[in-house]
Amino acid sequence: MTPAASPPPARQRSEHPSQPPPQHPSQPPLRAPAHPRTARIAQVIVASTRAAGGVYPDRTGPSIDAWLGERGWTLRERRVVPDGDAVGAALAAAVDAGCDLVVTTGGTGVSPHDHTPEQTLPFLDRQLPGLMEEMRRRGSSSTPLAVLSRGYAGICRGRTLIINLPGSPGGVKDGLGLLDDVLDHILDQLHGLDH
Amino acid sequence: MTPAASPPPARQRSEHPSQPPPQHPSQPPLRAPAHPRTARIAQVIVASTRAAGGVYPDRTGPSIDAWLGERGWTLRERRVVPDGDAVGAALAAAVDAGCDLVVTTGGTGVSPHDHTPEQTLPFLDRQLPGLMEEMRRRGSSSTPLAVLSRGYAGICRGRTLIINLPGSPGGVKDGLGLLDDVLDHILDQLHGLDH
Amino acid sequence: MTPAASPPPARQRSEHPSQPPPQHPSQPPLRAPAHPRTARIAQVIVASTRAAGGVYPDRTGPSIDAWLGERGWTLRERRVVPDGDAVGAALAAAVDAGCDLVVTTGGTGVSPHDHTPEQTLPFLDRQLPGLMEEMRRRGSSSTPLAVLSRGYAGICRGRTLIINLPGSPGGVKDGLGLLDDVLDHILDQLHGLDH
Repeated sequence: MTPAASPPPARQRSEHPSQPPPQHPSQPPLRAPAHPRTARIAQVIVASTRAAGGVYPDRTGPSIDAWLGERGWTLRERRVVPDGDAVGAALAAAVDAGCDLVVTTGGTGVSPHDHTPEQTLPFLDRQLPGLMEEMRRRGSSSTPLAVLSRGYAGICRGRTLIINLPGSPGGVKDGLGLLDDVLDHILDQLHGLDH
Repeated sequence: MTPAASPPPARQRSEHPSQPPPQHPSQPPLRAPAHPRTARIAQVIVASTRAAGGVYPDRTGPSIDAWLGERGWTLRERRVVPDGDAVGAALAAAVDAGCDLVVTTGGTGVSPHDHTPEQTLPFLDRQLPGLMEEMRRRGSSSTPLAVLSRGYAGICRGRTLIINLPGSPGGVKDGLGLLDDVLDHILDQLHGLDH
Repeated sequence: MTPAASPPPARQRSEHPSQPPPQHPSQPPLRAPAHPRTARIAQVIVASTRAAGGVYPDRTGPSIDAWLGERGWTLRERRVVPDGDAVGAALAAAVDAGCDLVVTTGGTGVSPHDHTPEQTLPFLDRQLPGLMEEMRRRGSSSTPLAVLSRGYAGICRGRTLIINLPGSPGGVKDGLGLLDDVLDHILDQLHGLDH
């Protein structure tokens, strides 16, 4: 696991003019960080041989980028890579670039081409099994197949949260809903801030 | 873990005349496979020192065989073996025989004689932790003790799904109900079929 | 992991005169053990650098001791230790002393100082993942952050149940509620008693 790949430069997307955060007056504002902090950097990695080859559209990556942008994250350019070793290489580049969060989508099933969990596991110094449990549990209220996701979540090098979301739009929606509930707390804990 | 045991010949039970599938007109028919496929082979392994010794009846094996037969599986003869190494030997024989599915029952608790999870783990190239989570969760609505099952589920050699069910009739019922929801999808994924 | 620490002598607290068990006539009596057995020994380990240093009060240890005392456990003196290696040393001493149950509280998050799961894992010959799943699930009905606990539960040397509770009072309450449901069964199984 030598992360030799030279990471691409971070692309700043601080505004997302095409997708402004919802501002409906009757809705509560998006959660503001409890503590002032420097810009946080996230990267989305789409694991899909067919999306990488142009056979399929990338169905889930744009929605994850949009979700992160609405919450003030600085985004590195999304990577769409074939299943397998390319996922590990993209993870290595994201970690080396100092990302605070890496979200993968796809490759968590049991098809012969699904390798995202195996590519992710070597990066995790500390696993967060409860995140995956809860994603599967929330998903199972929509489809019993949600329990089949084999993804991992955990911490790399004490600073980067990596989470494997499924490749289905429903699975991504469940995963992002869960991150809404716990992400600020995890990041504050990683930086030694108390609650 | 040398699977040297010569597997017994598969016993074809394509009809199960004594236990026909339910055909009540007001009931939906049993789920038909979404894709035409060749015969699928399953084996049930009962891990119970007392059942193997004739002290106890085999309470759960026949019901699992019946459940599989109703769903069109070709069944290898059920094995009733003592707890411990004999479980691993029976698993090796089933995998060597090319089974698509191996269901064990029993030996998943924390008694000194419970060793089924330890016997199963070396066979799993890919675990499916969500299956066990969901079995425990479904079971816990009947008994809080359901959370104590330590069983595994996963894939061996890219083709055989192995799942450890508890030894209690209630646990088996929960496990089979879950398999009804996900088994076809898992097998299709293993064979590279998309959904 | 050399358990060189000479364990302190067990402190018998068979009575707990200051905290008698609840005896309200409309309440069902506390569950009596199903089988006569010799005295069972438990130890609580509080993992908290600040509590060990006197910066913080020990918020959860006394309530766990009280809960155990009400259920007839013989208690070894509670240890309040800094996060990290001291937790492993306290676990080693408790196991060497022949405890039937060791309950830790604290250090299960992802802060840089949270190391209780890593200190616990080497002691577990058999894990009980369903206990932690169920604790997180019960906790998530109170707070979504409950899913972040990384604690383990399992068996050491075939006789000692070790369980990592979170450091929050709510997490401890959920964990003790779960133990109320399953503890007698686990201990009976460890001692080869059937149900």
